[in-house]
Order: sequence, then structure tokens, then C-alpha cells
Amino acid sequence: MMPHFSYKTSKKDLQRRGTLDTPHGSIQTPFFMPIATRGAVKQVTIDELKGLGASIILSNTYHLFQRPGLEILKKFNGLHSFMGWDGPILTDSGGYQVFSLSKMRKITDEGVRFQSEIDGREIFLTPESVIETQLTIGSDILMVLDECPPWPCTREEAEKAVKRTIAWATRSKVYFEKRMKQKRIAPEKRPLVFGIVQGSTFLDLRKRCVEELSKLDFDGYAIGGVAVGEGMEDKQTIIKAIAPLLPADKPRYLMGLGKPEEIVFAVQNGVDMFDCVIPTREARHGQLYVRKGAITKKSFYETIKIGNEKYKFDKKPIDPHCPCYTCTHHSRAYLRHLFSINEGLALRLATLHNLAFYLDLMKELRK
Amino acid sequence: MMPHFSYKTSKKDLQRRGTLDTPHGSIQTPFFMPIATRGAVKQVTIDELKGLGASIILSNTYHLFQRPGLEILKKFNGLHSFMGWDGPILTDSGGYQVFSLSKMRKITDEGVRFQSEIDGREIFLTPESVIETQLTIGSDILMVLDECPPWPCTREEAEKAVKRTIAWATRSKVYFEKRMKQKRIAPEKRPLVFGIVQGSTFLDLRKRCVEELSKLDFDGYAIGGVAVGEGMEDKQTIIKAIAPLLPADKPRYLMGLGKPEEIVFAVQNGVDMFDCVIPTREARHGQLYVRKGAITKKSFYETIKIGNEKYKFDKKPIDPHCPCYTCTHHSRAYLRHLFSINEGLALRLATLHNLAFYLDLMKELRK
Repeated sequence: MMPHFSYKTSKKDLQRRGTLDTPHGSIQTPFFMPIATRGAVKQVTIDELKGLGASIILSNTYHLFQRPGLEILKKFNGLHSFMGWDGPILTDSGGYQVFSLSKMRKITDEGVRFQSEIDGREIFLTPESVIETQLTIGSDILMVLDECPPWPCTREEAEKAVKRTIAWATRSKVYFEKRMKQKRIAPEKRPLVFGIVQGSTFLDLRKRCVEELSKLDFDGYAIGGVAVGEGMEDKQTIIKAIAPLLPADKPRYLMGLGKPEEIVFAVQNGVDMFDCVIPTREARHGQLYVRKGAITKKSFYETIKIGNEKYKFDKKPIDPHCPCYTCTHHSRAYLRHLFSINEGLALRLATLHNLAFYLDLMKELRK
Repeated sequence: MMPHFSYKTSKKDLQRRGTLDTPHGSIQTPFFMPIATRGAVKQVTIDELKGLGASIILSNTYHLFQRPGLEILKKFNGLHSFMGWDGPILTDSGGYQVFSLSKMRKITDEGVRFQSEIDGREIFLTPESVIETQLTIGSDILMVLDECPPWPCTREEAEKAVKRTIAWATRSKVYFEKRMKQKRIAPEKRPLVFGIVQGSTFLDLRKRCVEELSKLDFDGYAIGGVAVGEGMEDKQTIIKAIAPLLPADKPRYLMGLGKPEEIVFAVQNGVDMFDCVIPTREARHGQLYVRKGAITKKSFYETIKIGNEKYKFDKKPIDPHCPCYTCTHHSRAYLRHLFSINEGLALRLATLHNLAFYLDLMKELRK
């Protein structure tokens, strides 16, 4: 098989600059994936996403499985055609959602049994079924089912989760390869499948997880179970210790992170891929990003709360240097007004800006 | 003063085709005004409005007065620069809102005293203050303060409202002309001011109102107090009887209407201008317009309820002949999905489509 990832490493730190090939096109790394949990980035059209420079989006297997459901996705021959996005899509396995959203769940070595929080029906997920669902979705990058322990957890709990994560990853890979053979997928149409490293804050457990997963020769490796409640220091310790251990010739993905400075930190430690709800969620709460200077500065940005009284008469755009639609068309005062009357356009304009901030940050990091 | 309106009448009915000049550009009549009550068309950007072919928008004096408030609008030198729209703006006087929204109100010949439904403060509107507010807003077309009686009402009530509407219109015109002189407005920058015909379903009262208002030489004339609860037949009777009586050399505006067939009927009776919440409000409820054939046909369109189960797998766009963004990018099934997960993008895509339907209908009527 052809290598799907090529990269160069920076001379001064561990930062990498690369290209990741997927069935729906090549992506320049490091990159950030806007979140389209249920097949739509909230408030934003596909043309806008492209205009902002988004090269890949993330959707969620667990949420798509529930709504719209596989029956519809099958009829549409997958999510790309259903939502009208022709670029790459990565799907999260849903492991995190099962563990964080569902109260009624039972984990066995076989899989996870839980009740849908939407219609109460019982769902049984296995590593195999989760891969199969992602094949139905038509993902370009599939994530394996993992067990994400809560934070804090005991060493024993973390160890158990790592063991199960490795076992499930193994089954996932075997099943994936079997299905690729059955489906006779051409090499350039073959999706990628990524393993996920767990182990909570126990670095030796995470290292063991890396070693075992590396043997399975995944197409990429993710650090999971970070930003689940632990502090900044713990996060940094994990990133710094684990990212460089992940196979260098494969893309490295830090799941669910993070704040801009966390992304910069992770990139400097050799991480290539990111996703996070922060820019879009904060936008909907009127929390907007303003760049303050070079990334090398400690505080290279600030966030402003647009609802604040002090922006009432402010004719400046959110960020005078930002090239996004919102900043080139509207003032802070107008945005504040739109938020004050609960106008949907406010959420949209704010989301466009925050996504532009994140995607421009990635552009800069790629330079 | 130069005439600001020129037109030709159809040979087969009363339909007119004209050009209306305003300080922010000329508009082809007949036209439809998307509603930007508080300085934003819900869910839609200004670039999208232009792309849809909207040549003028409507905002509301009463709502703008409350939020963002005049202080902000003054700082921004008016609504155009505050919201970033450089085309013409018509502002409704707020008369209708005062009478329909406010429970605590007292009408005297002097004006209307009422309590804000937002912050409870007492507001006193006079014909003069309403003109002044619209000058602050920077409207291209100002509407006078009128008294819109409820439906049904007695002949006595209607007569009283007509009398007051005429008296207020007279004061409005006098005040407007005085202010134009004081401000030394150049002819091409002079906004237009429209009178409003009331009289409920009593045609003789409406005729008397037309006669009196005609003497005041307004820049245009509106039929108000229609679609306030009366039936289709009453509406048609009023339009058919009153529209042709309005001064022919001035634009005629049917306020707050209506359904597509009502607009077609009114155009055929010589009305030039329309505004209505229907397309945007129905869009937000997932009620979408589909053209069925020529305007001459009785049922030239239908509405579909996109949430309906039968669209679950429907790969067709809302309307296969519609050139809007929504119809050229997405299926009914996808829109249905977005509505089912309460995604804001659903409201936006639906609004774009329904506005396209209305604006395309007007384009066709202008042919």
C-alpha cells in the first residue's frame, strides 16, 4: 500500500508539516476540523466552510447513528452526498459519547450496551459494528471504538480501560481489513483507520497503549481521553510525553482539543490534527476571538464578550485584521445588537468569525 | 421637485410596471420588501439578500426605537451604516405595532401613550416624533403614524380612526416638509414620505380617507389595516375598490400582505409595493414554497411541510426549478433532518428558499 502521509519536521522543535491523502482529497497538516456532529456545522453552509479554508470536517458516528440514522445514510450512499460535502470527513467512533452521555450503559469485553438518550431504545455497540457504521457513513478517516475512563480515575480503572482499548483496537483493525478485502476497495478509495491511545494521566499506561497500538499498523494515531476534566498541566504533560512516541510516519491526532494556545503547544510537540467544539460553541455564547500578535507571544489573542455594554457604540469589527465576512461587513455594536435581540444571524456571524480565527491560526502554523 | 416615480400600465388589466427613485437607488416596481424588523432579516446576510435580488428592505420604527435605540442609530448616522445595507430602506411607522402589541395604551388626538413591552417605560408617540425618529433612522421611505382599528370594528370606531389618521397625516406632512427645509436636503437625497389609508371594511370611509390624503400630495400611498383578521373576500374587495383610487402617479403600497396569490391579485389591481412576514416566518416553521406553473393558473404553487415523514428519503431539492442556494445544494431529506435536530442552518436554508420564491415571483410579475 502507498503511504498516505508524508511530512517534514521543523529544525527547531518537533513541529511537523505534511500532507495527508484521503479518498476525498489531500489535506495539509497540521489542520483543524470544524465539527459537524450530526452532518452540519452549526449555522454554517458548506460553501462558507470552504471559503474559510476548512479542508476536512468531523462528524460523529454515535450521533449520526441515532439521527438521521443509517437507513437514510444508506439511501444517500453515505454522509458526503447526504450533506453535500465533497471533502474529507473524519468520524469519531462515538466511544466518548457513549461514556459521557449515556447513563444506562453496561460495558463488557464484547462491547457496550446502553439506552439511547433520544428514544430509549437499547443499542449494542461493538468494535466491529462501529467500523461497519463508519463504512456506511462513508468516512474518510474512521476512529476505532475505545474506552475513555472518567477523570479522575484510579490506576486500576485506567489500566482496565487501556487493556480493553487495545483489545477493541485489535478487533477493529482485523474487521476493517476483512471488510476492505470483501469490498475490493481500490487503494486510492481505501479509507484510513486510526487507533486511539488511552491511559488517563498515567503516562506509563499510555506508553504501553502506544506500543501495543503501534504493532497494529494503524493509518494514524490519536491521543484520546485528554481534556476530560484534568488541568492544563496534566494535559501538557500527556501531550509532551505521548505525542513524540506515536509512530512518526503516521498522522497524530489530539482528540477534542483545544484552546488556541493548547493547539500551538501540541503542534510544537508534533501533533498534526485537531478538532474542538470551542470556537463554534463559544461563538454561540458571544465569546469572540481577537488576535493580539505573533503566535510566539504568550498571549497572542484575547476573547471578548460581545454582549458587554462597552461594545454598544463600537464601530470597529470584532478583529480589524480578520478577513472573515463578519469582520469585513459588521461592527461590534451591530453584533452586540443582534445578540441582544436573540437573532439567529448573530450566531452565524459569530461562528464564521471564530472558525476563521482557528482556521487562520492553522494556516499560520503551517507556514 | 422631480417626479420620483414613473410607470406604464398594462393593456389588459390595471397592472403597472415602474421605477421608484430613492436616496439609496432606484427600484423596479412591483417589488417585495423582505422584513428586517430590528435591522436584520432573520438568519440572512446582506450579501445573500442582494444575491436573491432584494432591492429594498423594510424595518420598523417602533422596534428600532426600542432596540438598538436612537442613541446608537445616531452614532452610526442611521440604520444603513449600522446594519451595513446600502440599498433603500422603508420604515413602517410603528402605528400597527403600538395598536397590536401594547396592552397599556392611551390614544388622544395628540398622539399615543403606551408602555414598552420590553422595559415597561412609558413612551409617547406623536405624528411628529415618529417622522423625526425615521429621519434619525435615515429611512428612504417614511410611513406616517396612523390609527389602525382592530377587526371587526363598528362603523363609528372606523370613522374615528380615519379622522384621526387624516389629521395625523396632515401634521406628519407639515412636520416633514418643515424638517426638509431646516435640514436643506438636496432633492436627490430627500427621502419619500407615504400616507396610509385606513377605514377598515367600510369602503366609503376608505374612499374619503383616500380623497383627503390625496390632497396632501404624499410621495406614495399605502393601504393599511388589511389582513388584520378579515377574510379573503373582504381583503379582495378592499384592494379592488381602493387601489385604483390611489393617485396613479404615485407608488401604491399594500401593507403587510400577503400570500402569493394575494400579491398577484393586488398587482393586477395596480399595487406596486409589498411586504410580508409570511415567507420568512413560514420558513422557520418548515413550511416551504414550491412553484407549480404559470402565475395565471389558479394554484400556481403549493407549500410543503418539510418535517413530514414522506420527505425522509427524498433526494429532490425543495423545488427542482428554483435557482436558490438551498435548492441547488441540498435535498428535502437533508433539510428535514436539519429541522428534526433543531439546527439553525435549517432556518437559514429554508428562509433563503422562501425569500427566493417571493422575489422570483416579483421578477416574473415585472416581466
